[in-house]
Amino acid sequence: MSVVVRNAPRTDSDVVAALGEFGVATVHEAQGRRGLLASRLRPIYRPVRVVGTALTCEVAPGDNWMLHVAAEQARPGDILVVAPTSPCGDGYFGELLATSLRAHGVVGLVIDAGVRDIAELTEMAFPVWSAEVSAQGTVKQTVGNVQTPVVCGGGLIRPGDVILADDDGVVVVSRTEAKTVLDSSRAREAKEAATRERLAAGELGLDIYGMREALAAKGLRYVDAVDAGDA
Amino acid sequence: MSVVVRNAPRTDSDVVAALGEFGVATVHEAQGRRGLLASRLRPIYRPVRVVGTALTCEVAPGDNWMLHVAAEQARPGDILVVAPTSPCGDGYFGELLATSLRAHGVVGLVIDAGVRDIAELTEMAFPVWSAEVSAQGTVKQTVGNVQTPVVCGGGLIRPGDVILADDDGVVVVSRTEAKTVLDSSRAREAKEAATRERLAAGELGLDIYGMREALAAKGLRYVDAVDAGDA
Amino acid sequence: MSVVVRNAPRTDSDVVAALGEFGVATVHEAQGRRGLLASRLRPIYRPVRVVGTALTCEVAPGDNWMLHVAAEQARPGDILVVAPTSPCGDGYFGELLATSLRAHGVVGLVIDAGVRDIAELTEMAFPVWSAEVSAQGTVKQTVGNVQTPVVCGGGLIRPGDVILADDDGVVVVSRTEAKTVLDSSRAREAKEAATRERLAAGELGLDIYGMREALAAKGLRYVDAVDAGDA
Amino acid sequence: MSVVVRNAPRTDSDVVAALGEFGVATVHEAQGRRGLLASRLRPIYRPVRVVGTALTCEVAPGDNWMLHVAAEQARPGDILVVAPTSPCGDGYFGELLATSLRAHGVVGLVIDAGVRDIAELTEMAFPVWSAEVSAQGTVKQTVGNVQTPVVCGGGLIRPGDVILADDDGVVVVSRTEAKTVLDSSRAREAKEAATRERLAAGELGLDIYGMREALAAKGLRYVDAVDAGDA
Amino acid sequence: MSVVVRNAPRTDSDVVAALGEFGVATVHEAQGRRGLLASRLRPIYRPVRVVGTALTCEVAPGDNWMLHVAAEQARPGDILVVAPTSPCGDGYFGELLATSLRAHGVVGLVIDAGVRDIAELTEMAFPVWSAEVSAQGTVKQTVGNVQTPVVCGGGLIRPGDVILADDDGVVVVSRTEAKTVLDSSRAREAKEAATRERLAAGELGLDIYGMREALAAKGLRYVDAVDAGDA
Amino acid sequence: MSVVVRNAPRTDSDVVAALGEFGVATVHEAQGRRGLLASRLRPIYRPVRVVGTALTCEVAPGDNWMLHVAAEQARPGDILVVAPTSPCGDGYFGELLATSLRAHGVVGLVIDAGVRDIAELTEMAFPVWSAEVSAQGTVKQTVGNVQTPVVCGGGLIRPGDVILADDDGVVVVSRTEAKTVLDSSRAREAKEAATRERLAAGELGLDIYGMREALAAKGLRYVDAVDAGDA
Repeated sequence: MSVVVRNAPRTDSDVVAALGEFGVATVHEAQGRRGLLASRLRPIYRPVRVVGTALTCEVAPGDNWMLHVAAEQARPGDILVVAPTSPCGDGYFGELLATSLRAHGVVGLVIDAGVRDIAELTEMAFPVWSAEVSAQGTVKQTVGNVQTPVVCGGGLIRPGDVILADDDGVVVVSRTEAKTVLDSSRAREAKEAATRERLAAGELGLDIYGMREALAAKGLRYVDAVDAGDA
Repeated sequence: MSVVVRNAPRTDSDVVAALGEFGVATVHEAQGRRGLLASRLRPIYRPVRVVGTALTCEVAPGDNWMLHVAAEQARPGDILVVAPTSPCGDGYFGELLATSLRAHGVVGLVIDAGVRDIAELTEMAFPVWSAEVSAQGTVKQTVGNVQTPVVCGGGLIRPGDVILADDDGVVVVSRTEAKTVLDSSRAREAKEAATRERLAAGELGLDIYGMREALAAKGLRYVDAVDAGDA
Repeated sequence: MSVVVRNAPRTDSDVVAALGEFGVATVHEAQGRRGLLASRLRPIYRPVRVVGTALTCEVAPGDNWMLHVAAEQARPGDILVVAPTSPCGDGYFGELLATSLRAHGVVGLVIDAGVRDIAELTEMAFPVWSAEVSAQGTVKQTVGNVQTPVVCGGGLIRPGDVILADDDGVVVVSRTEAKTVLDSSRAREAKEAATRERLAAGELGLDIYGMREALAAKGLRYVDAVDAGDA
Repeated sequence: MSVVVRNAPRTDSDVVAALGEFGVATVHEAQGRRGLLASRLRPIYRPVRVVGTALTCEVAPGDNWMLHVAAEQARPGDILVVAPTSPCGDGYFGELLATSLRAHGVVGLVIDAGVRDIAELTEMAFPVWSAEVSAQGTVKQTVGNVQTPVVCGGGLIRPGDVILADDDGVVVVSRTEAKTVLDSSRAREAKEAATRERLAAGELGLDIYGMREALAAKGLRYVDAVDAGDA
Repeated sequence: MSVVVRNAPRTDSDVVAALGEFGVATVHEAQGRRGLLASRLRPIYRPVRVVGTALTCEVAPGDNWMLHVAAEQARPGDILVVAPTSPCGDGYFGELLATSLRAHGVVGLVIDAGVRDIAELTEMAFPVWSAEVSAQGTVKQTVGNVQTPVVCGGGLIRPGDVILADDDGVVVVSRTEAKTVLDSSRAREAKEAATRERLAAGELGLDIYGMREALAAKGLRYVDAVDAGDA
Repeated sequence: MSVVVRNAPRTDSDVVAALGEFGVATVHEAQGRRGLLASRLRPIYRPVRVVGTALTCEVAPGDNWMLHVAAEQARPGDILVVAPTSPCGDGYFGELLATSLRAHGVVGLVIDAGVRDIAELTEMAFPVWSAEVSAQGTVKQTVGNVQTPVVCGGGLIRPGDVILADDDGVVVVSRTEAKTVLDSSRAREAKEAATRERLAAGELGLDIYGMREALAAKGLRYVDAVDAGDA
């Protein structure tokens, strides 16, 4: 039942790189508010931003054996995505594994579990998003899967999908939708730039977005403080 | 049932500014250990300290429409205080809203929910205390209230109250008590300065505060290590 | 029932200092993956590393009276270890107490509760690992114990044990095992240095550690992406 | 700063009793989806429903002294509402206090902390909603407040307000709005009874509530399974 | 982007029914320790067991509009599976919706959010597994998806998959694997029955499973209490 | 490093049995508010009460191998106490293990992790206190310890200590103090019986315990509702 899938296709590297110019919030919005992983996945240092293709790995609780198996499947530009089969905060990953992954071109780690050696990882500038920080060691006894679809941080991730991560968190973009999402992200960013200027000049969102009528229709009314009483 | 209260009175700006010279812990103590908001409200960057007057806003879960309504009610020196009607960690607030609020003089945000664009907010030096960081987008469908009393982070906050926030968290000082609390804060700080010097010189709190007798009366006894066994 | 144990023996200071050259993860592994405290104990600033001998203190919830009692028992090189008798996140400790402890040679704090004044503590470079940050004040009404064995962060700590803490968390080394653990830590570090070089050169853990056979024996198999379907 | 307010007015007992015929969800909806306390407040046994008037009590963490003070202020039909000044799960309340409160006509307890003796309380059929169950004992050292407004479970409660609690949780109805909310509750219940019958007969909410057009306007579209692919 | 997939294929009803004779733990083991949903999904009453086919529904936080849309797609034997797009504990579901679903043959609900009216649902014997109990009402403003694959409780669920739920929690069995898993479940149950008898007779698992040698090989050793010291 | 300690001494069985006549709260108080395990350890059914001697077992996360090893060390009247070396909610224990343990006289289980088969365990009336309910299976790969001191639920437990558990939770009484604690428990119960009668008759705790003077000394004052304002 344990399998390693070799040569999984990755999203086109030009598209990946281009998506890396946007923030997580922008891309998440641009693909219709989908694909965001759970907010418990936090970066170990800030500021940080990285984009890459998912190298997925499913592990047993407290057992990091499969990370070594995953390392062999890495390609330059991959981000390792690790999902335990049941909740576990142990420190699956440290600077030795980061050294190994970097030697094979891996650009970051997203793990719904714990990591350790975060001082060293920070110094190496190896970006990591994890659910916990813990020095708790793991064993190497149980096999799992590499490059199969996984649920990580409550999101479904397929090998080769785009992983974009920054200070806000982590978003996944499906390999088959990446080009479309890139276009939407560009459009969104352009629109926001225009809005930003108007807001900075003091115009209100109420007016820019034309919200006043809709608010009134929903029953919002204005009173003066003297009418409002004291709670 | 949804209402915007205009022209709510604010605490006197001189008192507000003066309170901003103290830390949250000091002011919290000075008003009798009251007014501290829940410790889940953490700053997005450190070190940071800000003081201002509460511009309150009650929102639906996953819906940030009312933040735009609140922006219009802002006055220079306000801090936006956002409370969802049920627990929600979505990213209600980002750099566009911060740009808008800053244009109207708002000096910070306290939100019992999530925020996003924290890299940009940090770069802007726009101070935020939130329960979560999340890029999760919100909708604009449901109306709420602006400038009514709210419970945020487990504390009751009225429009115009003083909000003081730093690395330790957030404290609210009632508008009607602000002057009194300012005086107590000054007294407390003065006393602490004297104590600090004595402690730094090696005097013990046991002696400075005269605790030995009370401790003995409560039954505290001293033994030597040899008597204590090995538990 | 409340007791202060005077003159508890400490681990030999040379051994303590030598252990401080290693990280928490290394020492935790070197003593057989034991002694790590719960991952909720996080440092208030990073990077940070400190080593010292445990000065233990058991306190009532919301009551920091015994910290003053503990200060008198401090010896240079101690780390104060504070355990509440039931879960409590209040701010037991701030810069005044840090000033006092530092005057008596204490080099850090580990507390399974809250701390405050973290901006000041950071500026003082007084290292603290806590379960929470909270400005919530405490009372001085109930006595507890100083220098008795305590359970802190889920680990058993005896007076004089070695406490080592860094960005990853906190590990305790029993006084009676410290010398042995030091030797194991040195051995482990030496081995890791050799491995690090090989990993950096692109060798795989699979080969360095000779894992391939064991993985196959557990049933791991390799397939090509075309065989894997789309899950 | 610690105060006991005597003779606080209660909501009219006929209105209170009438509200007790509805469930918490109904009343919460009837007053505009306001007033629900946090879902961490759970009943110690089920099924259960009780209604009464709030007898409020603010306590220090790990200190139940004020519960005895509150007992003296009890009137028949009151529900004791206990809020700690900082989060605490200790067992503030057990069967002795329940015996005392019952002797003075108190009909239940809502506490944002822990309780104990739940086997005995269940046998006595004394209804309790608490955030935790814990046998952890408390001290009697610090004074607090009785019959002042408190924030309990994230909701603002004033002495004499209506507290309605059942298997779903706890809702507060302001004393000044109780009559209005009673009327709305009756109206809502009547409407729901009619809807229930139609739903039981197989009519769809889509048709009863006339939702189809609005859904289409928001962009909902229907496809057949063959078109949907396998995601 | 919001879609309702009509006529999604369901797992064969005979296979579904046969799986319902096993417990969740057995089926989870029988399919290789996969498919278990997060343990936060708990039944509202016990004992309970139900099996059915997944009718999936993705909803916005605090918005239960799509549940009415889902009701129309229900077929006898379905279990409604509800996943919010971001974490939310509001009470999406109560006895009116249960009445409607039951009228269309739905046999249960699994929801990674809150439910209400649990006294009524218990009386109706309508089985529900939810992450929370909360009376908090929801709005009907935002569209979502029905019968598309969803991640619920950390597991991937496709329309028509088998959902088996009991006192222990919820497991999903893929439609395409259901027959195989049924066979494995039968085999497992048979083996366990034999083991149960031997264990009841006092035989040790150590001997039945032949573990002694492997334990010794891993370094387990036995000592007498007198050698063990007092830790 | 993995060890099984044979023939650990147990607390005298008459003392154990006698302690079983008291509730957890009573014994916890009688030994000076010590020994209570964390409130996350909840019984799987209620009402329930059991007393026994600790058979301790330390396990790896997600690995229940050592439970089989522990079974061989069981003696009639033991309660199995299981502590994972890092936090894990997997289902370590089910009805097969319960069948085995019961055959060897074990009367209950306390586990700071998950259990499964709770319907069957309830039917068997095999009492269990656990941190979670989860069907998640475990492996048998890593050795641990049996009958060594463990920290379980934040409390230190030595082999042979008394474990008393009921609806309120779990308390441990040290083997060496059991007789003393039994005497204190009897004294406490006697005193409470007298108090209960007075409270039931309407006397106030304020008077029975003579609290009025101390409260006044701490500054508690009484005002009438008209003076209290509306906060």
